[in-house]
Amino acid sequence: MERAERAFRKLLAHLRDTATMQATVSLLNWDQETHMPPGGAGLRADQLAQLAELVQKRRSSRAVGRLLEDAQPFAEGRAPDSDEAAILREARRDFDRAARIPPKLAAERARLRSLARAAWAEARERKDYAIFLPWLGKTFDLMRRWGEALSRGEPPYDALLEDYEPGQTAAGLRALFGPLEGSLRALLRRIQASGRTVDSAPLSRPCPIDAQRAFARSATAALGFDYGRGTLHDTLHPFCSTLAPGDIRLTSRYSETAFLDGFFSALHEAGHGIYEQGLPADRYGTPLCDACSYGIHESQSRLFENLVGRSLGFWRHFLPRARDAFPGAFDGIRPEAVYRAVNEVAPSFIRVDADEVTYNLHIFLRFDLEQALMTEDLAPADLPGAWNERFTKAFGMTPGDDAEGCLQDIHWSIGLVGYFPTYTLGNVYAAQLHDRARRDLGDLEGAFARGEFAPLREWLAARIHRHGRRYPPAELIERATGAPPSPEPLLSHLERRAAEVYGV
Amino acid sequence: MERAERAFRKLLAHLRDTATMQATVSLLNWDQETHMPPGGAGLRADQLAQLAELVQKRRSSRAVGRLLEDAQPFAEGRAPDSDEAAILREARRDFDRAARIPPKLAAERARLRSLARAAWAEARERKDYAIFLPWLGKTFDLMRRWGEALSRGEPPYDALLEDYEPGQTAAGLRALFGPLEGSLRALLRRIQASGRTVDSAPLSRPCPIDAQRAFARSATAALGFDYGRGTLHDTLHPFCSTLAPGDIRLTSRYSETAFLDGFFSALHEAGHGIYEQGLPADRYGTPLCDACSYGIHESQSRLFENLVGRSLGFWRHFLPRARDAFPGAFDGIRPEAVYRAVNEVAPSFIRVDADEVTYNLHIFLRFDLEQALMTEDLAPADLPGAWNERFTKAFGMTPGDDAEGCLQDIHWSIGLVGYFPTYTLGNVYAAQLHDRARRDLGDLEGAFARGEFAPLREWLAARIHRHGRRYPPAELIERATGAPPSPEPLLSHLERRAAEVYGV
Repeated sequence: MERAERAFRKLLAHLRDTATMQATVSLLNWDQETHMPPGGAGLRADQLAQLAELVQKRRSSRAVGRLLEDAQPFAEGRAPDSDEAAILREARRDFDRAARIPPKLAAERARLRSLARAAWAEARERKDYAIFLPWLGKTFDLMRRWGEALSRGEPPYDALLEDYEPGQTAAGLRALFGPLEGSLRALLRRIQASGRTVDSAPLSRPCPIDAQRAFARSATAALGFDYGRGTLHDTLHPFCSTLAPGDIRLTSRYSETAFLDGFFSALHEAGHGIYEQGLPADRYGTPLCDACSYGIHESQSRLFENLVGRSLGFWRHFLPRARDAFPGAFDGIRPEAVYRAVNEVAPSFIRVDADEVTYNLHIFLRFDLEQALMTEDLAPADLPGAWNERFTKAFGMTPGDDAEGCLQDIHWSIGLVGYFPTYTLGNVYAAQLHDRARRDLGDLEGAFARGEFAPLREWLAARIHRHGRRYPPAELIERATGAPPSPEPLLSHLERRAAEVYGV
Repeated sequence: MERAERAFRKLLAHLRDTATMQATVSLLNWDQETHMPPGGAGLRADQLAQLAELVQKRRSSRAVGRLLEDAQPFAEGRAPDSDEAAILREARRDFDRAARIPPKLAAERARLRSLARAAWAEARERKDYAIFLPWLGKTFDLMRRWGEALSRGEPPYDALLEDYEPGQTAAGLRALFGPLEGSLRALLRRIQASGRTVDSAPLSRPCPIDAQRAFARSATAALGFDYGRGTLHDTLHPFCSTLAPGDIRLTSRYSETAFLDGFFSALHEAGHGIYEQGLPADRYGTPLCDACSYGIHESQSRLFENLVGRSLGFWRHFLPRARDAFPGAFDGIRPEAVYRAVNEVAPSFIRVDADEVTYNLHIFLRFDLEQALMTEDLAPADLPGAWNERFTKAFGMTPGDDAEGCLQDIHWSIGLVGYFPTYTLGNVYAAQLHDRARRDLGDLEGAFARGEFAPLREWLAARIHRHGRRYPPAELIERATGAPPSPEPLLSHLERRAAEVYGV
């Protein structure tokens, strides 16, 4: 046993050093999206490729394989969800998958990611898909090779999915998404047929951007994001970057006449950040200090953005504060009016600005298209046409250009294929968690109205955050809520809000 | 010859990869000073230690030694200042010195640097030397070991100096500084005896910090800093960070009622940045894309800060712009009044805010004290007393606390021992370069008044920037100006300004 324990400790040290190096990769990526001048792009691709190769070598090194074998007896006789057993199980999974990826391929992916992202940003700004086309082709070619390298017989897309949502498959997602799509479309039709409209114009009054930044910061701090262990900066496409639980970077973007967009982006990213800050720092480097899945991650961001941020209680607390922060901009507006405005349901072109009902329709479109790109049933050159055709069918309107069409999202440019479905999984999990939290904690909205967000955050920390990857996502949800993942709480939540806002 | 050429090309590739990794170290350090939350400090020390060890291994690897030997014939028959010969000479020097430093010691230094710096920042903020004391002790202990490892018989302090100013020694510096100190003291006495005073109060009117940031950015851009290849951010102790010629990061700090402090900090760092942007990017990783010495580096920052930024012509151009940027703050002030105010000579506690005459007295004090700390003639616990005693003797006034005394500078906390004297070398070189540029280019001040800074920048680029480490510093100055380094141009420059401002 002594030998096993020694190996276990050595393994922890090795994992910690790998995480330390990966944290540097995270900083390079964060900086690229926030502060790097254009002239730094070439060097940055080299820096990322260099470190990605080193990280990949560490992750797949035979030394890890030996330590895992030698440490295995240390888990025996312990509960499968004990720290030791969970660490060894998940570290074994990571090693097995890492060993299938040659370090040179990891370097190639990091370099391509950096260059393709720059091309995407330029293409989006110029609304010119041709600039991005060759890079999208290269990226899907590489991700196909990546998926093939990971695959043990399953389709490459499923092999990639496994990185984001362990245990999930395209077929499993289709089985979930199909009925959900039907219910959401039916709800949307009822809302549109109601003839009622929401007046959101008063919420577009100009708010100075500096004050928006300060307000986003104070609101996310109130939700529980700890700025002693994190930051908030500007970016083009909001994201949350993790170095370690003590150093979590939120980002948002602001526009003077679209206060709500930047504000909800900040709430969304704060949900991610609160999760990361809730992981056990003393287990840094191990799978226990790593998020369970991207679906679970999105459940935390969508929960704070939508279940919390679009609730009436939330605005009872924050509207008076917004009045102080933006003198004049919220005059004559009541919390009920904000509640209705932020829950307006209407088809729109941009996913991140979409309402909760149509949001998932944006995801289903991307889910289908990225599968087609992976199987080469869709050629990259044909993406804008396929996007617009499919969008028009789903939303009854056609993007005016590719910037509000297939160029709007950063994901594919940085090789995130199989990531989009986790947003809808996140919505499903979020509603289910919120539903259970409400039953456990009583009047959540009343607490929000009093500015009390700690009970919810602590409930999430205990049920979700502190576990890291101790349980697979479906089991984590079942343990937290008492039921396996189900779309019903999401649909009930959306029906309830539609009833309140549209009387349907 | 083919074999030598192949080795030379392999060497270039190796050096480039090392520089790429070092650029990541630079980013980690830059981020630590600008954006990192407090909770990130522990991880950051690990990240820096990890990469510092890898960089040190690359720099001292036997592969480099072999490549240098194999490539040597490639330099033969070429001029000593040809690209190839200069690269091989300086790369050999770097390798020989790197080989003396064990990678573990480099890791230790990086970790200590990160932690000692955090302790220094806290000590300075709390004005409590006790917080920093143990870290200063550890840092000088480590730098002594570092100097001993580098030394080939010379005192450890000289071995460290060699990193900042190749070819320079403490004895050489004393020979230069002694007479300079005498002349500066005599000038200061004459100024004080003149009985004239300068009214700088109107320049302390409040200026909003956002507008200061924007103004610093536009002024540094006008001087020639290219924001397509660089950035400007806030920090506690201004510095310039180099990733590559395409990614140079300036920093400054601002206070509402001290516009000039933040502005001159920005000009100073822009001088550094313009130098780095002027290095030949196509030689990235080689000594040709590396600054000649810290003294030469400081000559560029001090030149832009003082010879340019404190000239009357400069303010003829920028005062009207400051009036637009800060409505009301510069009403009723003429360029001549700004010129006098920014050239006020008066003893003060803070080096970075000191005038050009007393500035060097601040340096001489640090130069003496850091030598005493290295030889252990001065114990770290006795530093505040020694500082204050020496300061009082030199300046006729005593710091009220250690934050305006021995805690004011970041340098020792990050292991920069032997760095301070390069500031005075920079002042000496700057005046000599400016003197020659004026003779070559004609009426520089007239050009500044018209907003024309490109001729000076291009002159510097041709004489200094583009050469990197092709020549050692003294030779570079002699080639650029026609004379070996001399303090005379600096003294003439200061005499001239004293005559104009104080009539002495």
